[in-house]
Parts: sequence; structure tokens; C-alpha cells
Amino acid sequence: MNHSGKKKKVTFDDIAKYTGFSKTTISRYFNAPDSLTLENQDIIANALVSLDYKENKVARILANGNTEFIGIIIPNLLNHYYSEMLNRILLTYEHFGYKFLVFVGNEQEETERQYIRELLAYNIEGLIVLSFTLSSRELADLQIPVVTIEREDRYVCSVNTDNYMGGVQAASLLAKHDCDILIHINSTTTTSERPAYGRIRGFLDLCEEKKLAHRLIYAALGGPFEETQENLSSILKELDESYAGLKKGIFISGDTHANIFLNLLIRKYGSLPDDYLIVGFDDSPISKEAVIPITTVGQQIEKMAYEAVSLLVDQMEERKKRRPVPLTEPIHKVITPILIRRETTEKTSPSVL
Amino acid sequence: MNHSGKKKKVTFDDIAKYTGFSKTTISRYFNAPDSLTLENQDIIANALVSLDYKENKVARILANGNTEFIGIIIPNLLNHYYSEMLNRILLTYEHFGYKFLVFVGNEQEETERQYIRELLAYNIEGLIVLSFTLSSRELADLQIPVVTIEREDRYVCSVNTDNYMGGVQAASLLAKHDCDILIHINSTTTTSERPAYGRIRGFLDLCEEKKLAHRLIYAALGGPFEETQENLSSILKELDESYAGLKKGIFISGDTHANIFLNLLIRKYGSLPDDYLIVGFDDSPISKEAVIPITTVGQQIEKMAYEAVSLLVDQMEERKKRRPVPLTEPIHKVITPILIRRETTEKTSPSVL
Repeated sequence: MNHSGKKKKVTFDDIAKYTGFSKTTISRYFNAPDSLTLENQDIIANALVSLDYKENKVARILANGNTEFIGIIIPNLLNHYYSEMLNRILLTYEHFGYKFLVFVGNEQEETERQYIRELLAYNIEGLIVLSFTLSSRELADLQIPVVTIEREDRYVCSVNTDNYMGGVQAASLLAKHDCDILIHINSTTTTSERPAYGRIRGFLDLCEEKKLAHRLIYAALGGPFEETQENLSSILKELDESYAGLKKGIFISGDTHANIFLNLLIRKYGSLPDDYLIVGFDDSPISKEAVIPITTVGQQIEKMAYEAVSLLVDQMEERKKRRPVPLTEPIHKVITPILIRRETTEKTSPSVL
Repeated sequence: MNHSGKKKKVTFDDIAKYTGFSKTTISRYFNAPDSLTLENQDIIANALVSLDYKENKVARILANGNTEFIGIIIPNLLNHYYSEMLNRILLTYEHFGYKFLVFVGNEQEETERQYIRELLAYNIEGLIVLSFTLSSRELADLQIPVVTIEREDRYVCSVNTDNYMGGVQAASLLAKHDCDILIHINSTTTTSERPAYGRIRGFLDLCEEKKLAHRLIYAALGGPFEETQENLSSILKELDESYAGLKKGIFISGDTHANIFLNLLIRKYGSLPDDYLIVGFDDSPISKEAVIPITTVGQQIEKMAYEAVSLLVDQMEERKKRRPVPLTEPIHKVITPILIRRETTEKTSPSVL
């Protein structure tokens, strides 16, 4: 498949001869340019243009070990939060220049391990993990910089939303609207070591402090769409029966699920009934695009993506120093959520266009 | 950051000494294992385990040039069709073992070029392109295998849906439901060289052949959500006025947009009015998750993803042969769409749960 008129590859030898520098100097230009004077850097840069030099990054990686690759392990792309987070992470290429190897975990623990082993064999420089399958202890043992987002993170660096504050914000808003009963629906998989557990604690603490009638419902929300829809449909039926005539403030952990719940209500009543208020979590695109825009505890997804890559890049850069100073303990960045009020709680705007 | 107890790296030399084979034989084991007898392969495989050999893929790449990397250029992840296609492509890792470097183009032509130049410097083996910015002529000049999906593909291999048949299917279904007027809404960017243009041709041909009243509306659908929503809202207003009392069959190119149009109708009328039938395109997850499940011309996204990777892998494997036979002309695979009837056309199921 080569061009018939393909030129011979330009080597360090050619550049050395052309410029009169030693091969060592040429090598230093590529691997530690600042060790040369600006003048000499210019001479070599100009020579590269004249010689039409095509960089072979693989050779360069062997020389200095820097692949500029970051691995990403994401649980799935069906949850709108994950696809938006991935989108924002990938867009940091323009800023940081790192390239991303992306893997969808689908809770296949062994495949995930195999993939990570492969990435390590390719000398990736760092790893961003959103999936839940591998413990932070195991991730820390990989001996490369790791940053997790919204998952168990005891032994590795992480970027998380202040989930506790998010739970408080959601409950406060529903309380302010004089709901008779506050209900929080969360996933059965939200165990206490996950950051998202903070949403539950924040919700409960606020309700108890203000002595508000409340209830916590755990539901299986992690399966296929049809299953999640069915589970939320059963919950809706039960709430309709148990709290008929009462004003119900529903806080659902995750916009993807809040949207399913909202659609069930719309299908049942033709509109969002006055006795239902809904608050989601994430500010993923679906919350805005829903049939009735959903009030949500906004994770600052763009900021979180940027902070995660930035935190990773800092560690990767540190390792390239002559005397790297490793972190003595993991850094955990916490990003403040922003409550975004939309029509599922604020009925100021008419529900008919 | 190294373990203090880190073992010395096992080299080809060590393996040669341990097994009694020459270094050349060891190298052949890694790069052309089938040139050794099964017995000798076993001996070396066992030696690797005994020696606790960790493969260094970067070294292997230098030896045989096979990075096992595929680049993906995707326009965005907000359109549900793209995030589902990406999902399906990434999941082929389990089958083919190739790793994916993913880039979100966002119509930044120059950034896209720069990214591709970078990938080439890393010796990626192939490229899957869904974005529209670079011509197939330019992609063909990259001198690596390229497969495009649903975009202009004259000079490169591609996998596309039979869009023409999809247009015919949509129009036929609406005709069967005795719509008084058939309306196709498509994007202003769907120019004649794009596969999606087939949807327009199929729709028009069927309408003309059956002498059905019809209309083609081009709208700006590629911008931010709010803009698209506003444009579709204007169209809805106009259709309501122009065709009051008539049964309107609306075929919208893309489920993401069909969903926005459906939501506008629901907000306006509290339900899908009997005089509106809607058919989308793609069978992306949103069509099933919409407030009223949307009838759609289903692209077989999982199959398309598999075929695209498979077509690429075939070409990449060919290049590794001693005497590769390059393609004399690009292969264009066409996948049949499947009409999926849901509630926006079939009102058999009650609209209230």
C-alpha cells in the first residue's frame, strides 16, 4: 500500500549531517528540547522542515517512555451522565494534547482487567476510571497515575461532586415548596463507600433536621431500560396509592431515571400533576431535553472532566521529572453542585407553549 | 514510583537461555508464532510463565509495526445515534482485541487533521470516521485502512444503511395509515453526496409513485439543543396552521429530532394528537425511551458497528501479509434498515398505562 514515489525516511543521522550537530544533540532536541539553546532549537526545527521529517512517535516513546495516552474505563454509554462526561473528557484533547483509549466496561470485571493489562503493556501514562468493578486498592497497585470520578476512591486520586450538599439542596427545595412527603429514590447499588451515597445522607439529614415526613426507596435501576422502567412504574403506582391527595416531592438520583419517572407520569396523566414535584441529579443533557425540563442538582460535568484530566496530567508530569516526588496520599477534589430549577418544580412557565 | 522489590525485566536473551532456543526463534514466537511447531510454541509459552515475563507491547510494535490501535473520529456524543454507535464499536474489543483512540470532532476541521496526524505518528493501524469534515479523497490519501459510517465515502470503504429503502419504508407506513399529507423533515446539511440523502430520495419516489400529497422541509437541526427545538417548534406551528384538520404523517430524519418534535406536541396537547403520526430514523435508545415510544426506521447499529470494525480488520490483516493485495476499489457495505413500529404510528396500545 506504499506510494510508489515514497521518499526514504529521514533519520536522526540525516538531521545530524544536515545541521552539523551530533546525533546526541538531535536526540536531546526531541526528548529534552530545553537543554538546547533557543538558537540551536531553531536550527534543528528549520532542518526538520527542509528535510520533510515525519515524526515517528513510536520511536520517540521508546526513547523517553511518554506515550501521551490516557486510558478511560466507563461503565456504559446509555446513562446520559456517562456519555456527557466522556464527551467532556475527550474534548480536553485540545487543551492538554493527550489521546484517549476508551473502554466500555459493562460490569465485565475480567475483561476490564484484561484491557487494563493491555493498556499497561502499551505504556499508557494514566488512567481515568468511572466504572465500579475494580477496587481503588487494585487500581492503586497499577503503579501509574489514576483518577476516578464518582466511585469508591480510598487509595487513588479522585474528582467527585459534593453529593452530600446535593442531597441537602434537593431536599431543601422540595421542603420550600411545602411538599407533604419527601421521597428519595436511589439505586440498590449505591453502597456507603460510593460518593453518590452522600446524596442519601444529605437528604436524610435535612429531613431529620427540619422534621419533615420522608421516605427512602431503594430500587434496581442499573439494568436494561425496560427493567428500570418497570421498577419505577411499580414505585409510581405505590406512591399514587399510599400518598393520594398529598403533595409529593420526589428526588431521584440521576436524570436518566428522573426522566423515565417523569415520562411515566406524563403517560398516566397527560401532564405533570400538581401533586408531584421532581428533582433529578447530574444536569446531563436529558434533563434539559425532557418533555418537561427537569429540575436537577447539577454536577458541573465540564468542570469535573477538566479537573480529572488536569489532576492526572499533574501526576504524569511529575513522573517525568528527574527526581519525581510521588504523592504521599491521594488527592480528592470535590466540586460543588449547582441546583438548576426547571419546570418539574417551578410551575411559573406555562406547561403549554 | 517503582516497587522497591521490583524484579529485573525479563529479556529475549533470558528466554533464549532458559529454553535453549536462539533469540531469533524467540522473536519469531512473538511475531509469527505459526512459523514454529506447536511443541516449540508450548515450550516457550511455559518458559514465559516460569520467568514471569511481562510483555512490552511498545517494543513489540517496533518489531512488527502492529499497534492494534484503531482511531475513531465521531462528530459529537449528544446525538443519541452517535453515542450508541460508539458504544457498539467499543464493545467489539472483546471480539477483535483492537483498542480504540476516540476523538470528538465537533466540526473543528483543523483540530481533526491535527489529531489524525498525531494518530498516524503513533502508527495506528486503521481509522473509523463518522464525522463529515474531511473528504473521502483526503482520508484515502492517509495510506492506512479507513472505513466510514454514514458519510460521504467515494474513495474509502464504508458501512451505510440502505437509506433509500428506509425512506420508502417510512413513507409507505404513513401512506398505509391514510395520512392526508406526508411531510419529511431533514437537515439542511444533508447534501446529495451523503448516504442520508437516500432517505429524501426514497421518501420522494414513494410519494410520487403513489401520487401522495407530500412536502419536504429542510431545517437547521445541527446546532445546540435550544436552537433545534426552536426551529422544530416553528415548523410545528406552521404545520398546525397549514394542515388543520388533516392527518399529518411526519417522517423526521433522526430519532433525536423526532423526540424533540414529539415532546413539543405533548407539551402543546398533553398527548400525541390523533392527526399526527411520527416516524423517526436510527432506532437509537431515545426512540424507545421517549415519552411515547417512537416508530422508527431502525438502523441495525450493532451490526453496522461490527461490520465496520470487521471490514477494517480485514484490510489491516491484509497489510500484514508477506505480499499484501491492496483493494482495487473501496468496498461499500449496505445494511438493510428494519422498520420498528411503536406508538407514534400504531395506537393499538392505550396511551394511558
